[in-house]
Amino acid sequence: MPASSQAPPRPASPALRRLLDRLALERVDDDVLVDHGAEEPTVRLFGGQVAAQALAALGATVAPGRPVHSLHLYFVAMGLPGEPVRFQVARVKEGRTFEVRRVDVEQRGRTILTALASFHAPEPGPVHGRPRSAPVPDPDSLPRWEEALAGRQDRLTLLWRQPRPVDLRYVDGPPQLDPLLAERPVERLRTLWRADGTLPDDPLVHACVAVYACDTTLLETALLPHRTVFADGRFHAASLDHAMWFHAPFRADEWLLHEQDAQATAGARGLAVSRMYDVGGRLVVSAAQEGLLRPAGDEPAVVGTPPR
Amino acid sequence: MPASSQAPPRPASPALRRLLDRLALERVDDDVLVDHGAEEPTVRLFGGQVAAQALAALGATVAPGRPVHSLHLYFVAMGLPGEPVRFQVARVKEGRTFEVRRVDVEQRGRTILTALASFHAPEPGPVHGRPRSAPVPDPDSLPRWEEALAGRQDRLTLLWRQPRPVDLRYVDGPPQLDPLLAERPVERLRTLWRADGTLPDDPLVHACVAVYACDTTLLETALLPHRTVFADGRFHAASLDHAMWFHAPFRADEWLLHEQDAQATAGARGLAVSRMYDVGGRLVVSAAQEGLLRPAGDEPAVVGTPPR
Repeated sequence: MPASSQAPPRPASPALRRLLDRLALERVDDDVLVDHGAEEPTVRLFGGQVAAQALAALGATVAPGRPVHSLHLYFVAMGLPGEPVRFQVARVKEGRTFEVRRVDVEQRGRTILTALASFHAPEPGPVHGRPRSAPVPDPDSLPRWEEALAGRQDRLTLLWRQPRPVDLRYVDGPPQLDPLLAERPVERLRTLWRADGTLPDDPLVHACVAVYACDTTLLETALLPHRTVFADGRFHAASLDHAMWFHAPFRADEWLLHEQDAQATAGARGLAVSRMYDVGGRLVVSAAQEGLLRPAGDEPAVVGTPPR
Repeated sequence: MPASSQAPPRPASPALRRLLDRLALERVDDDVLVDHGAEEPTVRLFGGQVAAQALAALGATVAPGRPVHSLHLYFVAMGLPGEPVRFQVARVKEGRTFEVRRVDVEQRGRTILTALASFHAPEPGPVHGRPRSAPVPDPDSLPRWEEALAGRQDRLTLLWRQPRPVDLRYVDGPPQLDPLLAERPVERLRTLWRADGTLPDDPLVHACVAVYACDTTLLETALLPHRTVFADGRFHAASLDHAMWFHAPFRADEWLLHEQDAQATAGARGLAVSRMYDVGGRLVVSAAQEGLLRPAGDEPAVVGTPPR
């Protein structure tokens, strides 16, 4: 379980309250949970939100004291805002120390996401972690993502105008925000992020918020070597899968460094891999995400999650 | 599809013929395949073999011309040699260009493995890949794994005495084979491997053999920073999950460089991540595997897959 926050409490922003509302699924049966649907700021359900809800549903069927340690999921179809979402959980394994669960996420009887996750009662063992690539600056010295783009009226402001539930800051400045400004193609994106307000202590909530945050920036990293971002519209982009490993307890409402690397692009797909570190430099989360990156050519580009 | 091999054909070794036999599942229904069970060289079913069979079952339900691009699986329980294995496939998505499948692998009605995979009709797009860390020596200058250990009568010869279906060679010599010999803890294992004989051209077979090969060495990499290997018996070890991404066509019967990195150890679990490159240096596969690494303490150690 994450230690209680030592920091002074920060009130949750409206976007974070909205996300926490969406994570509070109604349990309609032992292994069935439902989101009855709500007004959404996007024309599609944001995949990271559905993925975070899937983990919330999976965790609801596991005994307390067994935190999630890994999650593997496929995005199967686009989700529709304002429609009920049903989470059907299957108990794949109920072990002495490990639990494995599957969840099929459906709308109108159609699967939109399927996920597998494993939960593990804490056990002692040796500790090792790939170190972060470089020290990080004080988050207070970096602008929030919204502030970094505030003066601009160009393509980069087209997407994601709605407030996010996380305070997201780009560590390395313009080349990562806008790869056309980079002298050479960029292969790494470093962000600092935390939930935009204090979270309850339940470690499952922290993991769910990390899923949401990870899905916000990871896939775009795969575009950086090609000197483009989603907003350029050069690619039809859609997340295909997402895997996360939770190595150690962490608080998603305290700063986390997210080191994201473009690993491979081929066959109209891209894979990005990443690591999250707490402020002490401890590796707490690893992740990988593959997405469709289909050259848009002359067709009208539909990329990312445009504002409604 | 992998190009036809330009190399002179090599006859399959007995261990490779055995693996190819195990991959030739009997189809008993549209979405049900069976391995009727066979004599095995190990006291448990080798996880990499069951994982490779799971991919063979998944691929059998997908139209030709749609190669697998990703696989995510959980090892749920130990498999029993000599017993029938049943592969029940579910068609999660049948799309215009993508197919998503799930398979539940059962013995005696009990799930031993569950997997999700996605298949994608080839599409053009830009190409990028994280480069290999260093040039590789001529494979002919390196001893086969069995030859490297041939003169030894110590703990490292305790495991894996049975022949493997892959010709496996350690690129960096003793420290990776025996981390006690290393001056500093090692965090990377580089191997060169290829199937021990020419494979049929079906790309699914090449992917299945890569799954088997990946599962042979990847998890052990997570032990290297702790200056130990499975054979030392300091840890109870078991694979928990395995994810692979197939970026581009490749032949598993031609040399592949496998760069494997220890990423994280904590909470009695370890995660290793890896990349496979063809001889031209093209990144063709990425992988990640987490396993239980429970300190054995004073208990008798049961690690890896001991010979029967």
